[in-house]
Amino acid sequence: MILRRIYNLLLSPEKEFTRSLRLILGFTPRNLSLYHQAFHHASVTEEGAINNERLELLGDSVLNMVIADLLFRKFPNRREGFMTEMRSKIVSRAQMNEIAFQMALPNFIRRSHSIRNLRENDLLGNALEALIGAVYLDLGYKGAQRFVLDKMIAPHLNIAALEKIDYNFKSKLINWAQSNKKVCLFKVMDEKRADHRILYKIGAFIDEVEQGVAESFNKKQAEQQAAELACKSLGI
Amino acid sequence: MILRRIYNLLLSPEKEFTRSLRLILGFTPRNLSLYHQAFHHASVTEEGAINNERLELLGDSVLNMVIADLLFRKFPNRREGFMTEMRSKIVSRAQMNEIAFQMALPNFIRRSHSIRNLRENDLLGNALEALIGAVYLDLGYKGAQRFVLDKMIAPHLNIAALEKIDYNFKSKLINWAQSNKKVCLFKVMDEKRADHRILYKIGAFIDEVEQGVAESFNKKQAEQQAAELACKSLGI
Repeated sequence: MILRRIYNLLLSPEKEFTRSLRLILGFTPRNLSLYHQAFHHASVTEEGAINNERLELLGDSVLNMVIADLLFRKFPNRREGFMTEMRSKIVSRAQMNEIAFQMALPNFIRRSHSIRNLRENDLLGNALEALIGAVYLDLGYKGAQRFVLDKMIAPHLNIAALEKIDYNFKSKLINWAQSNKKVCLFKVMDEKRADHRILYKIGAFIDEVEQGVAESFNKKQAEQQAAELACKSLGI
Repeated sequence: MILRRIYNLLLSPEKEFTRSLRLILGFTPRNLSLYHQAFHHASVTEEGAINNERLELLGDSVLNMVIADLLFRKFPNRREGFMTEMRSKIVSRAQMNEIAFQMALPNFIRRSHSIRNLRENDLLGNALEALIGAVYLDLGYKGAQRFVLDKMIAPHLNIAALEKIDYNFKSKLINWAQSNKKVCLFKVMDEKRADHRILYKIGAFIDEVEQGVAESFNKKQAEQQAAELACKSLGI
């Protein structure tokens, strides 16, 4: 009787953790310590101790690869530029934060008590990536791929809708400049032949000050990337 | 007899291709068309036709993931910053070009006749990444992982030596400024609390003109990244 109570006292939190995890993962986790690590935010770690940042790096790679594979098969006739753009939309920080929120990850993440409002907080998306890393180490690539596709993408993302969204940083920057009475200019700073194509180096300038530079064989893409960097650097 | 000659005429180039491929891959390729596509450079493609760029995107993801996994296991006690840096060193364009050259990929790549000197040409590294993508589609993740580790990394890369190389962009930029009689300054442009840590925004300035900006929780890393962007933008 006493043994049973000790047993319950020691094991039931882990049992509870396993049960809730199973709902999110769709399978019974094997190596629990991986998942504890995935939910361990740096704000509750002493300097140098283990938090979820290593797993996040691993999970980020798994995610990128699963999505590349998905897009490769789903869009057999689209060029790599389209696929790169689609992938950026799918794995964007905002998207990952939102999916993590919908998957109820805030209930799992161990963090400093002072971090209250988690919605749109990057630590959500980071923990989700760390979770992918944990699943990869627990089940291997195939298992992680299934988790990403069945538990993250299928219920929470509409790829057809994402395809139509235009992340147009150039018009975003131009609009911002106009409402702030600034001059926005895109200049071709360099053109060079490489690989038998022309590589464009394009800068986005606000009031003559360079705010972003990008290179691409595709002029429009270079402008978009330069505009994106400019938006970032100006906090737009 | 005639049939046999026709048979040989039609099949022997493919047989030869398979035989040479096997030497590089370490296994007999199944779906040859994937490998033909991997070696098909854009310079011999009509607009819109299939070249190796889609496979390159896929292979790049596989490579990043295999290396993340390798580093995760090889360096169990290192932080994510170290792993990110090591991965950048391993998968750098220069490194990939060199490995592709050592693996004799120039013999395989179909390209415009005017492209002669392939050493250090980015199309080499790109074709190697496309080849990884082809192996992934042909054999799956495990097979691609084996190919990357056994045929690319083990024979051609010394990870312990790479660990010691310091890609110090800050000192590169400072040295360049000194020999060109320019003033190089790193300024903290912003400090904000995020995730309960301090996020530094640091700019690299040459003669008061901003040449690169980067953010990181690690001040030194933000300086390095800002310096790297500055080196890039100045063509150093």
